[in-house]
Order: sequence, then structure tokens, then C-alpha cells
Amino acid sequence: MKVNVKKGEPVKPAKEGRAPGVKVIPLGGLDQIGMNITAIEYEDSIVVIDCGLAFPEEDMLGIDLVIPDVSYLKENVEKVKGLVVTHGHEDHIGAIPYIEKELNMPIYATKLTMGLIDNKLREHNLLGTVKRKVVKHGQTINLGCFRIEFIRSNHSIADSSGLAIYSPAGILVHTGDFKVDFTPVFGETIDLQRYAELGKRGVLALMADSTNVERPGFTPSEKKVGRTFDMLFSENRNSRLIIATFASNVDRVQQIINSADKYGRKVVIEGRSMVNVINTASELGFIQIPDNTVIGIESMKCYPDEQIVLITTGSQGENMAALSRIAANIHSKVSIKPGDTVILSSSPIPGNEKAINRIINELEMKGAKVIFQDTHVSGHACQEELKLIYALTKPKYAIPVHGEFRHLKRHSELALEMGVQKDNVIILNNGSVLELSEEEAKVTGRVTAQGILVDGLGVGDVGNIVLRDRQHLSQNGLIIVVVTLEKHSNMLVAGPDIVSRGFVYVRESENLMEECHDIVDEALSRCLDHRITDWGKIKTAIKDDLSEFLWRRTKRNPMILPIITEV
Amino acid sequence: MKVNVKKGEPVKPAKEGRAPGVKVIPLGGLDQIGMNITAIEYEDSIVVIDCGLAFPEEDMLGIDLVIPDVSYLKENVEKVKGLVVTHGHEDHIGAIPYIEKELNMPIYATKLTMGLIDNKLREHNLLGTVKRKVVKHGQTINLGCFRIEFIRSNHSIADSSGLAIYSPAGILVHTGDFKVDFTPVFGETIDLQRYAELGKRGVLALMADSTNVERPGFTPSEKKVGRTFDMLFSENRNSRLIIATFASNVDRVQQIINSADKYGRKVVIEGRSMVNVINTASELGFIQIPDNTVIGIESMKCYPDEQIVLITTGSQGENMAALSRIAANIHSKVSIKPGDTVILSSSPIPGNEKAINRIINELEMKGAKVIFQDTHVSGHACQEELKLIYALTKPKYAIPVHGEFRHLKRHSELALEMGVQKDNVIILNNGSVLELSEEEAKVTGRVTAQGILVDGLGVGDVGNIVLRDRQHLSQNGLIIVVVTLEKHSNMLVAGPDIVSRGFVYVRESENLMEECHDIVDEALSRCLDHRITDWGKIKTAIKDDLSEFLWRRTKRNPMILPIITEV
Repeated sequence: MKVNVKKGEPVKPAKEGRAPGVKVIPLGGLDQIGMNITAIEYEDSIVVIDCGLAFPEEDMLGIDLVIPDVSYLKENVEKVKGLVVTHGHEDHIGAIPYIEKELNMPIYATKLTMGLIDNKLREHNLLGTVKRKVVKHGQTINLGCFRIEFIRSNHSIADSSGLAIYSPAGILVHTGDFKVDFTPVFGETIDLQRYAELGKRGVLALMADSTNVERPGFTPSEKKVGRTFDMLFSENRNSRLIIATFASNVDRVQQIINSADKYGRKVVIEGRSMVNVINTASELGFIQIPDNTVIGIESMKCYPDEQIVLITTGSQGENMAALSRIAANIHSKVSIKPGDTVILSSSPIPGNEKAINRIINELEMKGAKVIFQDTHVSGHACQEELKLIYALTKPKYAIPVHGEFRHLKRHSELALEMGVQKDNVIILNNGSVLELSEEEAKVTGRVTAQGILVDGLGVGDVGNIVLRDRQHLSQNGLIIVVVTLEKHSNMLVAGPDIVSRGFVYVRESENLMEECHDIVDEALSRCLDHRITDWGKIKTAIKDDLSEFLWRRTKRNPMILPIITEV
Repeated sequence: MKVNVKKGEPVKPAKEGRAPGVKVIPLGGLDQIGMNITAIEYEDSIVVIDCGLAFPEEDMLGIDLVIPDVSYLKENVEKVKGLVVTHGHEDHIGAIPYIEKELNMPIYATKLTMGLIDNKLREHNLLGTVKRKVVKHGQTINLGCFRIEFIRSNHSIADSSGLAIYSPAGILVHTGDFKVDFTPVFGETIDLQRYAELGKRGVLALMADSTNVERPGFTPSEKKVGRTFDMLFSENRNSRLIIATFASNVDRVQQIINSADKYGRKVVIEGRSMVNVINTASELGFIQIPDNTVIGIESMKCYPDEQIVLITTGSQGENMAALSRIAANIHSKVSIKPGDTVILSSSPIPGNEKAINRIINELEMKGAKVIFQDTHVSGHACQEELKLIYALTKPKYAIPVHGEFRHLKRHSELALEMGVQKDNVIILNNGSVLELSEEEAKVTGRVTAQGILVDGLGVGDVGNIVLRDRQHLSQNGLIIVVVTLEKHSNMLVAGPDIVSRGFVYVRESENLMEECHDIVDEALSRCLDHRITDWGKIKTAIKDDLSEFLWRRTKRNPMILPIITEV
């Protein structure tokens, strides 16, 4: 496979006359769980944009993660020319090791993004087997019949990119996750000029970030949080400071370090993912740490509280993260003292509110002051920023990406406002195959695109039946009835033994369990009296009678598992 | 027991010299789950304020509700003079039927509050056995050595009250849940003059609502939502309107009916609790429904869409509520049509965000427009309203109520700002016994005060062990191993049979299950070879070997249940 890297002009259509369309196939990212991966296909070339994972929904009991189903790519593996990655967040890179085991695509990304991808590949022992190429903003790579240009962007992680995808059918622009930050902490403002140039030349379709499309106005600059930190450092000179934020928000950590330096505090970095990201960012030059600022957690005791700031993970209330362990007093090296000031530099991701609440309560009960208002800005574009990108790129088609349906819908309305023709605003589902050309846009097919559940080492072995059972067990517990019958005669020789778990506390419900015993005895005698020997029928009789009795007596519905053995 | 109802003066101390303190004993309400009940005790008299239920936390798997533990009241039942109720929300009245079965206290409340309590007592067949007395705002009742005055208030349910509790040790003021609404939809502004009079006379302690203490400023008037409704009715003249809100917010429903009347729409009321509350409120004169405005859901088809507004429950994304069923297309009488406008007149209670998200997505996918911004105001006082109550009542002691610890803490800071002495601001825990007098405030004891879990008809029979089992089962499922041994000889005569549920999909994991079989066989042979006959030891061997094997192979930890039978 050829990998030429040069500044590109749009590729000319492959043949004369009416060109075939370019296909846009989202394999994830267009629903509540937001695991981002999109395939772009033209004739014999497929390029994949991002390869993220999702965290399980509430009803995915016991599941660790969700990764995309790439059956379509596996079936067309000879067409797959490479994976281009917009930025280093989990929902864009997290599934790479899982998917690379199956597809082994070369990966193209900017320096920090690739650094974070490398960490993942290393953990899965894939660093030696996957081809990787670091790309600079402004650079263009050739992948099959496509040319892909990486465009400088702003987001809540440094070194993020938008993409221009030059296809024989026209130019597609993909913003990645973005905001417009006129005063970014690291690097420069998103390359608005390049978006304008592309717009002048003619953009076939714009795929833009829908996350914040419900919010009016502009997202504030990351620098705003830096000013808040300075104020908080100044107001809390006598406290130890503990600041929790997203591990991947390198610029946020940079600003904490800047304030620490200014106010004469040593910085302790705690939490595995925080340490990993900061190490990578620091090695690659994305974070500047003044000498003698960062100290090991062991050295914390050598300094007075008011000279310490501890930066940690867990701002979303994650169970196993450092902040949660500190709050619960089970962290081996940090415990809260009255007078500590804890700053949550994040806003709750929907679904995490209660966990965060719990941590705030726990911290305050131990005497800490917790600050969580005005300590965060979003990494995603609000309405006016999106309008700006539409004004610059003037796309023929708008394909909202990165959001739930409600966001995609609101985004379509915004695209209409910005002058995109009604029929040219297209809300896709995961798995839709959209074919686009200057002449028309049409959904021409569907491919498999549901999440694959990962539980421990098992990938895809937990499906709906298993989840339904877990749900049933979680709500009502279970009752096991063991009956031993004699071979041939079918006489009862042992049991029924009744065992329950997660149903009632048996010692306090002895009567109920005895009654269960009687019900099973009766059901059994009835079967044996009628010479019913079919085990299926016997089990059904036990199950029906027992569940009817328990519903009547307790209005509960435990799972009932009759087991028959034969001797 | 004497129940005199007359306008009261403060009760004089029982004896000369230094009076004993009055006890404040919160039995709930001071934690995340917010089930409100407080006992006030002086010598041989106890009066109970509110008796609410809580909805289960995420880790209370399978639990329907949580009710307060009133062991302390049961032990002192001869002292309990009555239950006074501030307003008709579930977290203040929901546990009444459960607790009245044990305590049978007379109940005192205003008209609408009592109407809603009556509905509950009727459902539990308690209407004939519990003494009830409807009280008017401004009225005072005698309960043992206490006199209790009901004070007109504002909240997100009509007819709500604050309380002045005249005790021999001084006057306690309890705000109930409140806001200051200068232009309420029904009735008048909270009786600020009365709070001022009490303040002039001298308030020993103020117990005020902490819910919104983190929010600066003033909560807007309920009337503001009415203006929004008018605007939305005017902007959506051609759509069917569906509005979801809290069933108990009678004033909200009144405003929807007002807009419907103004814009010529018929009103359909849907959802069991909505129908119940509106019926009660309408019978008692708390809602005015113009003739021919409300129609049955069956008649909806007789009118064009643009002449209909449907008011429904489920604005919090509750699974079984009408809106959720409509969104999922499983409601028997209403299905969403493209062009429908759905208004969520509520804001998410923490923990419900994801469920609400899902409903918004489902509704929009079916073509509805969903409006959820600026369609709600809170029923709770923000910082400036709380400060106003402090300025009027000038309490000696401040006892923040109704909130999680973080709120109680913020509330204490506000009380300090308002001039309450540092030692006189008291954060209590559920179960603390606080003794208060002009001389001092002291926590003098603790009583039992945890939630009791209700699951189906079972009250309190699901405890920590059962919940822990449900948790384990929900995350990992279970494996049952049945072994049949011969009596005396202890020879294996049947099995091992292995059954799993919620672990892996067995058909796709046959090898794994076979290996499990081998592991159990080995463990068994080892035991039987060593003449181990103790069933406990045999079970432990099976469990240990199997769980070690499964962790190694799958990084999962299912519940393992060995069952031995004997023939």
C-alpha cells in the first residue's frame, strides 16, 4: 500500500461523465452512547475516521465497554486503506487496539493523538505490528483514491484536527470534535482560513460536531478557566488544593501548573490515566512543566498544605478513580483534612450527576470546601461557532455527526438556517450507507453497526439473553429448586431442595420458604401421579405454581430455576 | 387525646427556673434520598412533622420505595400526639399509610394536602381508622404541650404550609419546602408578615429548606411559566400539543388549562397520578376548569390535532409513566405523529437525565418537536429568599433541613452571613437528638434512622445481604453446580450438572462450560479421594477452583452456587 504525503489538490473524478457517489457510512457515533467511527468509501478505497469506544448504558449490566462492530470493514478488508484519527479522546481512539487486532490498518494522526494511541497499542502488545504515521496540521496524505488533509482545530484536548477528504466525487469536510478558541492555551486558533479556502473551492458535504448544538452563543475560551484558577489559588492561599479534571485535558492541567508556579505551590499528579497522559504530553512537548514544580506523591508530606496542589482524576465520580477513593477515605496516600479545598474542574456528563453528588457530600462531610461552579468550559462548539463553520465552508450537503438524535435534529435546523437546501440536510443512522455526489444524496443501503459488549476478557459473548437474565436477577433474585428422581421409575428420591439468593433474607422468612417447599411438593406429586415423565413439563409445573404463589404472597417475581437430576 | 384548635399564644414554660430543652430529632430528610420526617419532643409530648418516602438509589436493586424507620416513635408511642404535614409531595406524605399502620397518629394538614393524604389512606383501606383534621392557614392546634400554627406558604404544590411550633422552650419555625412567590397562580404570597411577627416575638430556631441554597438570586414566579405557555400555544397553533409535568403541580396544570381555554383547545388529562391529583384538586376548589374544556381521552379523535392539548405524567422519564409509553409507541391511546409538539415542563431531578434524554430522542425520531428549555421554574427558595426568611425571623439557632450534606453546609454558611452565631448553626444527621433551649444547643443522643426498603409487599425483608447478592448477580450472573452423592458411601451418583444464568450465552461458549465441568470433576475427585465428607468443605473446594479458573480465563467473577443432594 502506497502512503504518499504531500500537499494535495482535489483528486479528479475517476472516469468521464457522471461520477459515482462517495459513500459515507457511520458505524457508530450517532446515538446516545457516542462511540465514534465512520467509513468513507469510493470504489475500491475505504478510509476509516476515528475508532472510539463507549461506556456501557445503565441497562448493560456488568459490561465494561462497548466497541464498534466492524463486520463491514472485515468483509471489505482489502479496500481499507487506513484509519485517520481526529483527536485522542476515548470515544475516538478507545477501540483501536480491539479493532486493529482484526483489521491491522495503518493509522494516521497528529503527534499527541498518536502518542495516546501508542500507549494503548503498547498495553495490548500491538506496537510492533500496527503501521503508524504522524501527520502535521496542513499536511495531506494519500489513501487509495482519497487524499486527506489534517486541519488545525481547537478542542478540550490538544493537537486535535478537522479533516478535508478529497474524493473523486468532491470534498468532504469533517470537523472532528471542535470549538473555536481565539485564545487557546496551546497552539493556535482553529484554521478558519483553511475552512474558508475549502469553502471557496466548493465543499460537497460538511460533517460537523453536534454535541453543543442546543446551546446558543459561543463556548468561552479555555483561558477563562485559567483566570478562574488564578482567582481560586489567590482566595485559598491557606488551604491544600485538590483539583480534579479530565486526564486528557492537557491544557487544563497546564493552567493548573501555571497557577501553581505563580503561587509557589508544588504539584502532585495522581491517578493512573492522569499520570500517563501528562507523561506523554510532556515528552511530546504539549505541556511545559517548570523545573522542580512536580513532586512525587511520597514527597507531599515534606511540604506544608498551603504549598501543595494535587491534580487528580475522578471528576465524573468514577468509582475507582483517585478522587472517589480520596472522598471515601480508602486512598492509600491522600486523606481529606478539614480546611482542604477541592475544585471539580468539569461539568457532569449526563448520567454521572448522582455519583458526583455523592463525592461532593463525602468530601464536605470530611471538612473540605468543594468548588464546582464556573470551573470548566466545554470543548464543543455552540450554535454561533457552528454557524461560522457553515458560513466559511458553504457545503452543498450537511451531515450532522457526533450526537444523539435530538442533537442531530437541532443541527439540521441550524444547517437549514445557514442556507443548506432542505433535501440536502441528512440525518443518518449508524449503519446507513449514504451515497453522495453533486447530483444527489441517497441512502443506498445498510450495514451492521451495533455496539459489541466487552465483559472482562470476553468480547461479544454477552448478548441480549445474558443481559435480560442479569436484569431479572438484579431486580428479584432467584430461587433454585433441585429435585432428584430415580431413573425409570421416576420416583422422587431426594429433594426438593430450595436455595435462594437475592430474594429475601431466608432466616427472617422461614415460613415463606416452607410454604414454597409445600408448593413444589404438590406440583411434583401432581406430575408424578399423572405419570408425567417429561422433565420439561415437570419443570414448567414447578415454575408456574411457585411463581404464581410468590407473586400472590409477595408481589415479586424472582427467577425460578428448577433443576432435575436422575440417579 | 385533646385536640383544641384555636389561635394560640406561645405556651409558657412548664416549670419555674431553667426550662429543659425541646428536642429536634430528624428521622429522615438529611441525606441524598430525602425522605422527610422530623420528630419534635418535649417531656411527654412528641409531634411528628411530615412522613415522606424516598425512591430507591441506584444500588438498591429491585427496591420499590424506601420508608423511614420509626422505631423511636413506636417505643414512645404514648407520647406521640400527632402528625402535622406541610404539603402534599411524596417525599413528605408518601410513607403515611405504612407508618400509620404502626402508629395510628391523628393527622393535621391543610385541605389539598389532606385530600392527597386521603387518597393514599383510601388505597390502603385506612380511611376509617386514622383520625384526620383539616387546618387552615393562620390556625393553631394544640398537641400535648405544643401548639402548632400553620403559616401560608408558596411551593410547587398549592396549599403548602410553614409551621410555627410553640414549645415550652421557645418557638421553632419550620418553613417546609418553600419559595417566595409574589404573584402565585393560586392563593396569596407566603405570609411574610407572620414570619416577621414571629421574629419580633423571638424565634428559638429556624428549620429552613436547603434544596436550592447553592443557587444565587430569587426563584422566578410560577406565573412566568404561564407566560411561556401562552407564547408556545401561540407559536404552535398548527400542532397537537403534549405537555408533561409533575402530577402534583396543580398550578402548572391550571396554567396549561388557562392557555388552552385562551387558544381554543380541548384538554385531555392522561396518566393515573395526574388524573387523581387533578380530580382531588378540582373537587376541593384548587383548580378551575372552564366548562367543556376537559374531554376524555376517547373523545380526542373527534377533534383536529390543533384543537388538542394533552397533559401527562412522565416528565422525569419514569419508565411506566404515560410519556415514556407514548415515546416508545406502546401507549394504548396516544401515538406520536410528525408535527406534534411535546413540552417537558420540568427540569431533570439528578439521576433522571439519561432516561429523559432517551425519551426526547424517541419523540424526535417519531417526528415530534420537543421543547424543554425555559418551561419550568423551581418550587424552592434560592439564596436571596432564604436570606429574607432569616432577616424576618432572626432565629437564635439555624438548623438547615431538606437537603444533602452539601446543601446543609452551604445553608450554614448563609445562616452565618445572616448573623446567626457560629455555634448556633447546627448541621444534624438523621437520627441525631438535638436538645435546644435559650441557654444551649446540644446533641444529646442518637436514635435509629435508616430507610426501610419496600420490595413488592415486603417491608424490611430485603437487607444488605440480599442487595449484595442482587448486585453480584447483576454484574456477573451465576453458575449452579449440582452434585448428587450417595448416603454413607459419599460416592458421586449423579452430576455434576452445571447450569448458568446471566454469565455467558452457553451455546456460544460450549468449550468453556465443558472446561468448567472438568474443573468441578477434579475438585470433587480430590475431595472424595481424601475422604472429605464435610459438605461445606466440598462446596468450598468446588467454588474456589471454579472461580479461580473463570477469573483466569474470562476476568469475570460470577456467583458460584454448589448444591449437594444425597440419595
